[in-house]
Amino acid sequence: MAHSSSANLGPGFDVLAVAHSVFRDEVEVRILGEGSLKVELAGGDPLTNTASYAVLKMLENLGHKVQVEVRVRKGIPAGLGLGSSGASAAAAVAALNELLGSGVDRNTLVKYAMVGEVASSGSPHPDNVAASVVGGWVAVTSVEPLKVVSIPAPRDYLLVLVVPDLKLEGKTKKAREMVPRQISMEDHVESTRRLTSLLVGLSSGNRELVREGMRDNLVETARLPLFPFYPEVRKSALERNAVGVCVSGAGPSVLILADRSTDVDGIRDDVRRISGLRAEVYLTEVGEGVKVEVRN
Amino acid sequence: MAHSSSANLGPGFDVLAVAHSVFRDEVEVRILGEGSLKVELAGGDPLTNTASYAVLKMLENLGHKVQVEVRVRKGIPAGLGLGSSGASAAAAVAALNELLGSGVDRNTLVKYAMVGEVASSGSPHPDNVAASVVGGWVAVTSVEPLKVVSIPAPRDYLLVLVVPDLKLEGKTKKAREMVPRQISMEDHVESTRRLTSLLVGLSSGNRELVREGMRDNLVETARLPLFPFYPEVRKSALERNAVGVCVSGAGPSVLILADRSTDVDGIRDDVRRISGLRAEVYLTEVGEGVKVEVRN
Repeated sequence: MAHSSSANLGPGFDVLAVAHSVFRDEVEVRILGEGSLKVELAGGDPLTNTASYAVLKMLENLGHKVQVEVRVRKGIPAGLGLGSSGASAAAAVAALNELLGSGVDRNTLVKYAMVGEVASSGSPHPDNVAASVVGGWVAVTSVEPLKVVSIPAPRDYLLVLVVPDLKLEGKTKKAREMVPRQISMEDHVESTRRLTSLLVGLSSGNRELVREGMRDNLVETARLPLFPFYPEVRKSALERNAVGVCVSGAGPSVLILADRSTDVDGIRDDVRRISGLRAEVYLTEVGEGVKVEVRN
Repeated sequence: MAHSSSANLGPGFDVLAVAHSVFRDEVEVRILGEGSLKVELAGGDPLTNTASYAVLKMLENLGHKVQVEVRVRKGIPAGLGLGSSGASAAAAVAALNELLGSGVDRNTLVKYAMVGEVASSGSPHPDNVAASVVGGWVAVTSVEPLKVVSIPAPRDYLLVLVVPDLKLEGKTKKAREMVPRQISMEDHVESTRRLTSLLVGLSSGNRELVREGMRDNLVETARLPLFPFYPEVRKSALERNAVGVCVSGAGPSVLILADRSTDVDGIRDDVRRISGLRAEVYLTEVGEGVKVEVRN
């Protein structure tokens, strides 16, 4: 079982993420036989599913000649910027690790699960996977070698997820293509200022620093055409005393960081009134890391 | 009195800095008369000195019609990446603030002092000034409006400064021109990963994260021709168990972060042996913020 997550958190494109406890994918991995490598996916093509693809690549890499069956029970809405594919892959590799007794460390688990992301978005971004594996607030501080660290943050923050009923074919790939390839040094410095504000704000529990830090000047801005309702959701959330607001991963979902002083019902009302937006609003908490259950 | 400082700290170009207790500039500000605005600099042109220029601009801004005299006693070697001009400006505006009873907050003091930097480097970078005003480890998380925050860091870290006997005419301006104007998104993400590693490492006291985080992939790399000895100093320091190493501001000085387990004498020996480098090595501590003494 692995939870959904929001990547980026504003200025942390491909670096930061947080897991949420509201949604979870369950993946079952069973060994069917030994002697040759084969991965079957219950009800699908194992090469186009992140869970089974990650399992296949992990088995190849570890040199295990086994036939396994992968079953995925999706609880996380897909294609909405909630790290759905990453969670399936995280749950799958963690289950396989337990099943084989490989004793693989969590950084390596993230690495295996990240390979699964290629099957869904065309690129192995590690942030969602890291949050699903480790839980809580995480940063990927290095890719080669892969290194995931937990970021200190106040424990009482709540997460509000605005999840639009809006499916875009190949959205993550498209959203990644909208990210500028070159940026100016000024924009880079501005982005690092905001990242610093966010990280210092989270570690010290300074609301204002977190709010200022969550504003992104690069990636969200470039992707705005994908989620035209975002500025209105953002404005409402801040007026309702949210700690901070950002686009959840590649969108279109929006992550609102809240605490006890935030008027979540007010945000819900406002979202209902935004024209052209049909969305569910979920109030949830920061989620835990991947959990493996052994059944015989 | 204000201390010297090291800006950037690797990936925090124009954002991060730390004050050191080893060097200090003392600035005396006296009111000579009232009724018209005039700033005199003992022994120099008030328009080309950061301290007197900052004083002039602060008086203009506050609308004070007074004649003042500014005396600067430099204790910080200039032109070596140690925030010398920033410290003079910080001491000057803090003294003027006290003298006039303006009650200006520290963010605004940094703003006034930063204007002084224009007189020396052609651009008002706020990081050194912020460290000299506030002391300790600081981040400039916003420029408009100016906002300086203290970054959490272990208290027992020592600072080793390698200060080459190497003066370059107009060095800061030249060093700023060597910074690339455009960077790729990949380099940006890599830089934010390192910044995250540094900040999380400092706040949690994780040596490895600090060391990895202090490596810069953008600005130091571009400026390497200005300090060809840097890779050798860096290698020595890490072999002698330094916590981390970076170029101090625009260089050529090098900042080595150390703790009790670092072989500082070994670093000193190594630096002496690097061919073509004549440098002093200072062992010091993290410095305090600007101090004002009132004399009648």
